[in-house]
Amino acid sequence: MSPKLPVLQQVPSRADIEATHLAIADLIHRTPVMTCDSLDQISGAKLFFKCENFQKVGAFKMRGAASAALRLTKAELEKGIATHSSGNHAQAVARAAQYLGVPAYIVMPENAPASKRAATLGYGAEVISCAPTIEARQETLDQVVARTGATFIHPYDDYHVIAGQATAAKELIEDAPALDIIMAPVGGGGLMSGTALSSSYFSPDSHIMGAEPEIVNDAARAFESGRVETNTRIDTIADGLRTNLSEKTLTIIREHVERINTVEEAMIIRAMRLIWERMKIVIEPSCAVPFAAVLTYPEVFAGQRVGMILTGGNVDLEKLPF
Amino acid sequence: MSPKLPVLQQVPSRADIEATHLAIADLIHRTPVMTCDSLDQISGAKLFFKCENFQKVGAFKMRGAASAALRLTKAELEKGIATHSSGNHAQAVARAAQYLGVPAYIVMPENAPASKRAATLGYGAEVISCAPTIEARQETLDQVVARTGATFIHPYDDYHVIAGQATAAKELIEDAPALDIIMAPVGGGGLMSGTALSSSYFSPDSHIMGAEPEIVNDAARAFESGRVETNTRIDTIADGLRTNLSEKTLTIIREHVERINTVEEAMIIRAMRLIWERMKIVIEPSCAVPFAAVLTYPEVFAGQRVGMILTGGNVDLEKLPF
Repeated sequence: MSPKLPVLQQVPSRADIEATHLAIADLIHRTPVMTCDSLDQISGAKLFFKCENFQKVGAFKMRGAASAALRLTKAELEKGIATHSSGNHAQAVARAAQYLGVPAYIVMPENAPASKRAATLGYGAEVISCAPTIEARQETLDQVVARTGATFIHPYDDYHVIAGQATAAKELIEDAPALDIIMAPVGGGGLMSGTALSSSYFSPDSHIMGAEPEIVNDAARAFESGRVETNTRIDTIADGLRTNLSEKTLTIIREHVERINTVEEAMIIRAMRLIWERMKIVIEPSCAVPFAAVLTYPEVFAGQRVGMILTGGNVDLEKLPF
Repeated sequence: MSPKLPVLQQVPSRADIEATHLAIADLIHRTPVMTCDSLDQISGAKLFFKCENFQKVGAFKMRGAASAALRLTKAELEKGIATHSSGNHAQAVARAAQYLGVPAYIVMPENAPASKRAATLGYGAEVISCAPTIEARQETLDQVVARTGATFIHPYDDYHVIAGQATAAKELIEDAPALDIIMAPVGGGGLMSGTALSSSYFSPDSHIMGAEPEIVNDAARAFESGRVETNTRIDTIADGLRTNLSEKTLTIIREHVERINTVEEAMIIRAMRLIWERMKIVIEPSCAVPFAAVLTYPEVFAGQRVGMILTGGNVDLEKLPF
């Protein structure tokens, strides 16, 4: 059994991230950092890919869910953990609960992919369907929490989750030293803010950047305005990045991130295909967004040592964009 | 520059394979051995996958081509190396020549995939088109050799190539000790015979097995009859395994291999999809044949530690069987 972690009331410190990394070790894989001569040639940069597609449940989300679950008291844990998600966070919360031997309650929109639903059930979670709207998700979750007493684990607006996601960049920095640039994709900002914290603590000379699809460029706008911004369209292929930032993640990002790169859909697809073809690995479209930024902005990335987080590999093989 | 290797007139010895492994080190990647809890659960076996899909040129063929090229004299090398292939061996010979700074001449049937042709050209080889028949290939190759004086590197009926392919199993054995079963797919038998030799030398307690599609079961028949057999149909999805054994490979296989598992096409596709979905890696259909054998014959594999070679990752993403 992993050690219990302290509750965090503020932005995770260096020591918080180190303690989190130790505590979640049994619940995660230490994923490899891969390089690829062919993609280096194409981009003109020296690229280091942190392969969270090989993470448990197929995505970095396992880190944040484990970090949050290990903060709960025995009494809290016995009542279980809950979330709403149609994606990787659902599986991560379910898997963390399975590991800890406690109940998981996952609210999923009824149009969620059957494969994600099956995987979540496969980890022993109770799946509660709801209408496919933000309001229905929250309302259904509130009912579940009221009924069960389970603790809600937010997918990103949570310092415990951020501390967990931060461990991916910590490992990247340990395995690929002297990075000029460290970059993560930006959706709700949990991974981006965790990456920003670890980079500032463990690799202070690196430039910290984000990458997001142009269609859902709320982070780039929020970065300028200082306010949480929303997206009017969300029809990007990078389905993990459709959400917007929260107060917690925006604050960390504005403090530490130097630049948010926005990329076109066609470049995301090109980047995704190049990673599949040249690196021989299966990645989700969201993963390809930082590499798409490298291809879009050679004036920023050429000649640099660039570390990037490949966030996950849960993709529907019957619906590939190529 | 890698050391030159001696010419082999007989079946490679343990020392020959060790020397080959040292000599080709700069021309190959030491590829990882991956495991997957989910596939272990599905199969009931403990599986170790040697990931030659991450090898240079995307396939184990790099090992054999490097081993063969490093046997040549300076005078021979200056005239170049040649082969006929529509697949991974073409790219491997081209890449070996590029590394050594000598010409490569690759005879390719005119219906070879454009991507393979482009990749071979990308390594600086001269590509010579021919009609898509065995006879036209050989005739065109003979003409090229007569014109250039280049040395033909056979894809499998060659002790130098076999010694190179043997290094994949040697690494697998070093990284995954105490394997009960070591298995490779069987096409022309270069990888299978190399795997058999390394297993008998470096892991003598392991059972050595092959796997091939039922449609092209020449190896299973030759294993029984003692003669090289041919296939009447070759329309398996495992396009790397359509060739039949040669005298050299059959002799080694009959001496060391315990069993050739034959598998149905539907199981190859299922095995391939499971590896993509659960391991998040891109593999060719031929790679999936040993895992398909594990799924087909639980009475042989359940409860065993099984090492398998994933041969390559060069697949047309627009023509997936799922």
